[in-house]
Amino acid sequence: MRRIAIDMDEVIADFNSKHLKVYNHDYGDNLTIEDLKVGRLEDIRPHLASQIIDYLHNPLFFRDLEVMKDSQEVIRNLSKRYEIYITTAAMEFPSSFNAKYEWLREHFGFLNDMNFVFCGDKSIIHADYLIDDNVRHFDRFNGQGILFSAPHNLSVTGFDRVSNWQEVQQYFLKS
Amino acid sequence: MRRIAIDMDEVIADFNSKHLKVYNHDYGDNLTIEDLKVGRLEDIRPHLASQIIDYLHNPLFFRDLEVMKDSQEVIRNLSKRYEIYITTAAMEFPSSFNAKYEWLREHFGFLNDMNFVFCGDKSIIHADYLIDDNVRHFDRFNGQGILFSAPHNLSVTGFDRVSNWQEVQQYFLKS
Repeated sequence: MRRIAIDMDEVIADFNSKHLKVYNHDYGDNLTIEDLKVGRLEDIRPHLASQIIDYLHNPLFFRDLEVMKDSQEVIRNLSKRYEIYITTAAMEFPSSFNAKYEWLREHFGFLNDMNFVFCGDKSIIHADYLIDDNVRHFDRFNGQGILFSAPHNLSVTGFDRVSNWQEVQQYFLKS
Repeated sequence: MRRIAIDMDEVIADFNSKHLKVYNHDYGDNLTIEDLKVGRLEDIRPHLASQIIDYLHNPLFFRDLEVMKDSQEVIRNLSKRYEIYITTAAMEFPSSFNAKYEWLREHFGFLNDMNFVFCGDKSIIHADYLIDDNVRHFDRFNGQGILFSAPHNLSVTGFDRVSNWQEVQQYFLKS
């Protein structure tokens, strides 16, 4: 059975909407997902960069992210034909371990939690496919990288790309 | 640069000594490492198995394990010639995430924490070597498994075996 590794933030967990919401609320701003096409939140509001990053060190930040549209249904379907692993660079925010684990158990409880991986450098991942929004993880990955569209990667070329979970389903149904 | 993945418990972290110590203290018993050659603690005291396992769900249990003799020095030496990743099946005890991370930072702070991996099924690990005390992790591992001796695996045959960290150093210096 072939194996698909799947990133969390911006792929199955709607990181940006939560980050924008807490930032806009606290600083009276009105930034939208559209604004993130020119850079990450901390890049377009550099004078508040440290505060913007600090949100991510809150142990609860990652606990109540919305689930990305159709991801549960499509992953459930794919899990019948592929081994599914969730591979997240949680080492970048060690305070997020528990929230990420509980989030996965709540929203993707149909997966075996022995298939959850909290790592940093994803070249350690042994899989046939990696669905991720960060192309840096494809550099030394030994399988096929699949770029999941996110505001920050829309201008990146040279990778297989999917824009949503319906496209992920089509990608694997045809392969 | 070739890559070595290294397990934590019973390989770099002295799990058994701590487990025996808290159990012996709480139940007035006198079991030793020698006794574990016939089975794991919960197997040789089955009437207390649930309490014995419960220790491992304490978020602090893994925080103050002793470092296995010579492991720091040898891993520091190996890290000059190999990529070192620490790969632990932390998903078996999710309450251990923070303790394990802090322990690694304290005792193996010379490693990049992007090279720490908390997983369940280790077939997801992409490495040339895996040093582990549990042979089940070698089943679907795509590299060379190296069995690190522990009381529970002394009768297992069919694998490259090392009994301590000096032997690990010899294994890699000659290869």
